[in-house]
Amino acid sequence: MSELTIWTLDWVPEGPRGFVRDLRLRWACEEAGLPYKVQTIPFDGRETNHLARQPFGQVPFLSDGELQLFESGACLMHIAQQSDKLMPGDAIGQAHTLQWVFAALNSIEMVSVSWWFLTISGHSDNELTGWMGKRLAQLECVLSEREWLAGDRFTAADLLMADVLRIPQVRAVSNRPASEAYVVRLTSRPAFKKAYADQMAHFELADKERA
Amino acid sequence: MSELTIWTLDWVPEGPRGFVRDLRLRWACEEAGLPYKVQTIPFDGRETNHLARQPFGQVPFLSDGELQLFESGACLMHIAQQSDKLMPGDAIGQAHTLQWVFAALNSIEMVSVSWWFLTISGHSDNELTGWMGKRLAQLECVLSEREWLAGDRFTAADLLMADVLRIPQVRAVSNRPASEAYVVRLTSRPAFKKAYADQMAHFELADKERA
Repeated sequence: MSELTIWTLDWVPEGPRGFVRDLRLRWACEEAGLPYKVQTIPFDGRETNHLARQPFGQVPFLSDGELQLFESGACLMHIAQQSDKLMPGDAIGQAHTLQWVFAALNSIEMVSVSWWFLTISGHSDNELTGWMGKRLAQLECVLSEREWLAGDRFTAADLLMADVLRIPQVRAVSNRPASEAYVVRLTSRPAFKKAYADQMAHFELADKERA
Repeated sequence: MSELTIWTLDWVPEGPRGFVRDLRLRWACEEAGLPYKVQTIPFDGRETNHLARQPFGQVPFLSDGELQLFESGACLMHIAQQSDKLMPGDAIGQAHTLQWVFAALNSIEMVSVSWWFLTISGHSDNELTGWMGKRLAQLECVLSEREWLAGDRFTAADLLMADVLRIPQVRAVSNRPASEAYVVRLTSRPAFKKAYADQMAHFELADKERA
């Protein structure tokens, strides 16, 4: 029996609320109907106070009995292996799910997060803008031709890609109707709404406790 | 029986030779002793002539019978599942291997490739330099304390992390003796040397055919 615990921060400022990556794991558990607990590490000292469990000082990480895991992609695949709601049962469907999880975290996030970092640092027209536009246009071609990324059905890869694409600054890049419809469709799912509301409530409660 | 075919470009200029990512898959097959073929797509028109098989217009991609895969991480995990030379057999060891494959492709490459892109664009001291230094310092801490990333043995995760870290500009960032020793140790393996030599020979042969 699985004993999933999702670890996140005890508090964050308003800006990142709704976008902290524990949401990816909450959303997956909600889709799969898997029970989970949420535990926290302190925001203050977050970059060094849990390096033994997450060597880059980030959240989320996951524990499941004696297994401890970090990297949202690896945690997501661990959860996906426990439910056919998140991944097909056949080898090809599973390989394609993993492929698109990597695509979200490498082919897209490699440029989108770095571009976003430069953008919020005050360089809205930066050297990564061309690369960013190209990658998003390529993904728009894919999403123009199909509803889901892998296995002709919702998978953990859609959950992750939608989470990567729903960043407001990314969403505002050029007119990409298929990608926008994809983000709207995915974030309309009850499991996303529940995960999002739970994350917001978690940090609002922390506000009260700090007050 | 596996029928692995690694797809790469038929030719590239001298600059990227030895660093084209088909090397990751050649190296994995050499470590595992798995037979494989190499097939090519044309360099000219490379960004659009194979979008059906790689929607971001990149290499490598892999075929194995009727399975077609892209994303070097997904291809590497597919190969790793076929050999205990690349991944432990137990669930925890496999989860940790996958975790460090994601760490190489997201926590490190997300910043290292973007930083490298800005660097070769003439911005050697750019807005990503601080982030880059921080991530490499965090990884140096990890590599100071252990020989391998996952399962206390060589895995596909070491192969990939070493390939990410061996980029000359990345290698030159600050004094990180454990990371440097790690790169030297990994790239001294006979399977790496064979994969590297084979990629170099592949492109040199293409020079002659174009001449």
